[in-house]
Amino acid sequence: MIIVMQLHASDAEINAVVDEIRKAGLQEHVSRGSELVIIGAIGDEDRINPGHFEIMAGVERVNRVTKQYKIVSRDSHPQGSVIKVRGIPIGGEQIQVISGPCSIETQDQMNIAADAVVAAGCRMMRGGAFKPRTSPYAFQGLGVQGLEYFQRAAERHKLPIVTELMDVRMLDTFMEYDVDVIQIGARNMQNFDLLKEVGRVNKPIILKRGLSATVNEWLMAAEYIAAGGNHNIIFCERGIRTFETAYRNVLDVTAIPVLKRETHLPVIVDPSHAGGKAWMVPALAQAAVAAGADGLLVEMHPNPCDAWCDADQALTPDELKALMVTLGAIAQAVGRTI
Amino acid sequence: MIIVMQLHASDAEINAVVDEIRKAGLQEHVSRGSELVIIGAIGDEDRINPGHFEIMAGVERVNRVTKQYKIVSRDSHPQGSVIKVRGIPIGGEQIQVISGPCSIETQDQMNIAADAVVAAGCRMMRGGAFKPRTSPYAFQGLGVQGLEYFQRAAERHKLPIVTELMDVRMLDTFMEYDVDVIQIGARNMQNFDLLKEVGRVNKPIILKRGLSATVNEWLMAAEYIAAGGNHNIIFCERGIRTFETAYRNVLDVTAIPVLKRETHLPVIVDPSHAGGKAWMVPALAQAAVAAGADGLLVEMHPNPCDAWCDADQALTPDELKALMVTLGAIAQAVGRTI
Amino acid sequence: MIIVMQLHASDAEINAVVDEIRKAGLQEHVSRGSELVIIGAIGDEDRINPGHFEIMAGVERVNRVTKQYKIVSRDSHPQGSVIKVRGIPIGGEQIQVISGPCSIETQDQMNIAADAVVAAGCRMMRGGAFKPRTSPYAFQGLGVQGLEYFQRAAERHKLPIVTELMDVRMLDTFMEYDVDVIQIGARNMQNFDLLKEVGRVNKPIILKRGLSATVNEWLMAAEYIAAGGNHNIIFCERGIRTFETAYRNVLDVTAIPVLKRETHLPVIVDPSHAGGKAWMVPALAQAAVAAGADGLLVEMHPNPCDAWCDADQALTPDELKALMVTLGAIAQAVGRTI
Amino acid sequence: MIIVMQLHASDAEINAVVDEIRKAGLQEHVSRGSELVIIGAIGDEDRINPGHFEIMAGVERVNRVTKQYKIVSRDSHPQGSVIKVRGIPIGGEQIQVISGPCSIETQDQMNIAADAVVAAGCRMMRGGAFKPRTSPYAFQGLGVQGLEYFQRAAERHKLPIVTELMDVRMLDTFMEYDVDVIQIGARNMQNFDLLKEVGRVNKPIILKRGLSATVNEWLMAAEYIAAGGNHNIIFCERGIRTFETAYRNVLDVTAIPVLKRETHLPVIVDPSHAGGKAWMVPALAQAAVAAGADGLLVEMHPNPCDAWCDADQALTPDELKALMVTLGAIAQAVGRTI
Repeated sequence: MIIVMQLHASDAEINAVVDEIRKAGLQEHVSRGSELVIIGAIGDEDRINPGHFEIMAGVERVNRVTKQYKIVSRDSHPQGSVIKVRGIPIGGEQIQVISGPCSIETQDQMNIAADAVVAAGCRMMRGGAFKPRTSPYAFQGLGVQGLEYFQRAAERHKLPIVTELMDVRMLDTFMEYDVDVIQIGARNMQNFDLLKEVGRVNKPIILKRGLSATVNEWLMAAEYIAAGGNHNIIFCERGIRTFETAYRNVLDVTAIPVLKRETHLPVIVDPSHAGGKAWMVPALAQAAVAAGADGLLVEMHPNPCDAWCDADQALTPDELKALMVTLGAIAQAVGRTI
Repeated sequence: MIIVMQLHASDAEINAVVDEIRKAGLQEHVSRGSELVIIGAIGDEDRINPGHFEIMAGVERVNRVTKQYKIVSRDSHPQGSVIKVRGIPIGGEQIQVISGPCSIETQDQMNIAADAVVAAGCRMMRGGAFKPRTSPYAFQGLGVQGLEYFQRAAERHKLPIVTELMDVRMLDTFMEYDVDVIQIGARNMQNFDLLKEVGRVNKPIILKRGLSATVNEWLMAAEYIAAGGNHNIIFCERGIRTFETAYRNVLDVTAIPVLKRETHLPVIVDPSHAGGKAWMVPALAQAAVAAGADGLLVEMHPNPCDAWCDADQALTPDELKALMVTLGAIAQAVGRTI
Repeated sequence: MIIVMQLHASDAEINAVVDEIRKAGLQEHVSRGSELVIIGAIGDEDRINPGHFEIMAGVERVNRVTKQYKIVSRDSHPQGSVIKVRGIPIGGEQIQVISGPCSIETQDQMNIAADAVVAAGCRMMRGGAFKPRTSPYAFQGLGVQGLEYFQRAAERHKLPIVTELMDVRMLDTFMEYDVDVIQIGARNMQNFDLLKEVGRVNKPIILKRGLSATVNEWLMAAEYIAAGGNHNIIFCERGIRTFETAYRNVLDVTAIPVLKRETHLPVIVDPSHAGGKAWMVPALAQAAVAAGADGLLVEMHPNPCDAWCDADQALTPDELKALMVTLGAIAQAVGRTI
Repeated sequence: MIIVMQLHASDAEINAVVDEIRKAGLQEHVSRGSELVIIGAIGDEDRINPGHFEIMAGVERVNRVTKQYKIVSRDSHPQGSVIKVRGIPIGGEQIQVISGPCSIETQDQMNIAADAVVAAGCRMMRGGAFKPRTSPYAFQGLGVQGLEYFQRAAERHKLPIVTELMDVRMLDTFMEYDVDVIQIGARNMQNFDLLKEVGRVNKPIILKRGLSATVNEWLMAAEYIAAGGNHNIIFCERGIRTFETAYRNVLDVTAIPVLKRETHLPVIVDPSHAGGKAWMVPALAQAAVAAGADGLLVEMHPNPCDAWCDADQALTPDELKALMVTLGAIAQAVGRTI
């Protein structure tokens, strides 16, 4: 930790800071310049609270220097991690496109969707049984019935399934229905009790970025899961909230190379929620793969016009198929496969 | 709902939109200008899904015109609501300053804090037993033990208590310990399952604004609680996330008059979390009262230097006392009391 | 400057950084911890470029510690500066409310407006002759003709006038018409050539904050003016751009106490542009004064319904008069006058 | 324009709105639902001012429906425009990568840079003679001397040159030195006097997006140039300002497909300023091409460690060469060439 003293800080103020550093079991290094005094606290930074120093007399500001995330940091595991879902690798050379409808509606819809997922060459399927909706009067998902439809549809093709968990009390049900990958939605990225619970199971977790979460907060949210023992975490960038109103959110492609450098864990992208319109999805999906994403979550509906939710952002089965071809060529351009 | 057709939309496209409006049981009004065709859908807007129309051929864009929030809307209750907490009114002429430490630490700390709350002229007390922390390695709160310390300290002065609920599974415990006002934190503003649960109890709820929640989303989150039957909701503005890095968050004072116009429910402000530094609190608290806030949540610690969390944002008992004097004068200037 | 080395940085990498620091004439302090090596560069920080160090092998990151603004910093002038405009003080105990219409339209309109400004108890007048409009097809202001109307109307009451300069080539005209205070608009806050030019005249400058300018960038923009020799600078907060769409901008009241601490120069607030609606102006104006603003820029039009620009944000003369009464009481509550 | 009346608006209020619409020469369509009255104003929307209606009694809100940009709109020119710079097409099948150093330093530096630009396969060169710097004490560019170095270096390879204009008073000098493409920087995107001036010359203009400019404001800024007669405008996305602090700005790839749909003009991307670090540039450049950009502005310096400005974001000549190979493969994947 680095403590910058105010101009004209007195020796007594400097000494008080030094005393506090020593009390915490760290070692101080005092650098005196003509204008400024800077004090470094060397040692285990987690043993000191920056806030304590910030209110001491004569202190201008305090900066942490070590990262607060440990298990998810690339420092702890310099090679990238590959997470296997029923044998399918996420985070390796092969890019995974996970597709399916926004919400689970009927057995038929899910069967057709599963066929289309396979036909397009995807290896995993998504679908929502519990839906986080802005309005309490909007369709909230089919719930457990939805999980049943989903499992039945996916099983015909041995497709691993991905679905969102919103409530800690449903975790046992998710385990019963053998959900392959549990998704934590953007609005729950800092629902710390939920993170702690999924840290105790042995299922891979897709952790979506909160709408205004910094990369650092996102890594810390993953650290909550990892600290519980579950290291199978997949980051999913899904667009951030900005001042722009011409589209729903801004897909933050810069987060992809930055996360790949900061963490050893896989990074995927959801181009469907980011833009909010089906016609934007191909451009965003292509950008994500070109920027180094390990996978995508793409909404596809057998018949978007009839979708019960987010109708305007789902691709048709044919659009998905066409997109997969372009993505394959881009993957090759960046030394990967799809 | 208003549907703006694209330039050169065909009659067939226009007719298809009209058909869909009629199918939903609404009535259409088609306005044909030299450049544009605009179609209004008149009737119960909740029966139609804007997304369905947005993907129809020839449609440029779709705008809702009615508000999605009903119970919390001022339209449903033109006079302001006054919520009573053990007889203390929130939302009336009297402004309530709720004060206390960020986190509950010891029985002694809480006793001294409760004395200071009363000495400053405040009528309600806050304190955190369960703390949402960015890092899993940071102090997470004393939990149930904290509730016990809090109740004991507050009871000596008959102070109603306010504390944060993070996990649905703790709601029964909150009822047992007779928490007077349940706070839903910023990170849980769209934790919809939690909102549904607190909608079923008969305790007043303080609903903090999410860090990047729009006013509309915030009203909809309150509508989740209200839809469950609990109409005792208090909005709490606590600063929003912006590009600025010189302070933690930006206190959005504009939200105060806007909410007071949109909803009949009380609006309070948390100046402590907004700025993140104790020296900013008086200016922000004063601004909030001057802008029409019905109350404040102000952090105060018997000895900020020793606080276990957010040490740098707590006022001392003396600073709180001085602030209350200035706030009293401002309250009077705007026709209220404190 | 502080240079944090990467974990496992080699001695050669550390030595290379030290060499660069010495080459620039500064002195290094190397702090070696168990995990991290931190190097402080003590001396005149302006002689080194952080970017050079950031790309050196083994460097994790680089932080400046000294402030880049010098003349405008409170460090250079611990007491606050009071700027006099024809004898009227800005920045002292008395708060100045500068009022008038958004744009200058006719001689009559300006005469009536000037009468209303005086009747409300204000001592300075604002009005726009050159208007920055988003659309090239919108009314761009009356130009020089407007300055003439303005001067004539204001002269009847000896009111100092404030108006916006957009183009360096008009500066001589502003001097000819003896504009008392030159306003630099939000969109020109980083129009560095314009800043340099107004740095060479001896007129007070109101420097509005850019829509997404950080406090640091704003102080640096003022430093551009100050570096040219003109130290009569007044900061004007006018709302920042955020994700919120329910109002035009978010008035950043936190900037008021922060600027008052960082700079010795006066800080005023424009509540009219911030909210964008007349009915929001009183709440925002009151908040600004309560938070410590030294003045306000408030739009008032003799007949808002007929205003050529921003009709919906102007107060009527009667509304201004009523607001001044409330502001007077709040000023008193915070130890000032109006 | 659509005017939504408040619930319970009276007939008199409705009639007053209708009268105003007719006065402006437009035609009204009144839709009366059970809850709401909506009034459409059909005709030339530019003849009415939404603000006038917003303050009328009984009006809830007002929405424009037509776009304010005309010349730059794709509606005015459904096929994309290809802009030729000394015969080199921007906006066609071939993607143009414009490269060169951030700032012009010496003749030697520019000569080596020009050689590297050509060696990498690029056809145009960039370089800054006038630099917009946050600090008045930072290097402000070589000025006219820089233009001379630049022209001499580029001429050896017949490379068209791109450089930034900050001050209207320098426009004649830019014409004398025969600058091929004039760049308007992000900070000047709404410097309307500068836009008007470059609207009068016959040189292509690169218009960078302001740091917090919406797509609509950006299109309107281009409309300022186009309204002056110069239709050779190239949009350049360079990252937007958000809450994220882990990188300088967030490259908004979504803006690429959105602009390509809204305007017929070319869209290029500056990945160097967006991320602010050289190691991020390849991922961002690749994403931009994959998302449909017509070109890139990439900073390259013969020796980044010695760069006088933004040292940490420049590629080396070798890195540029390697990037061009990958970009070529991605261009092919999306049906284009480089």
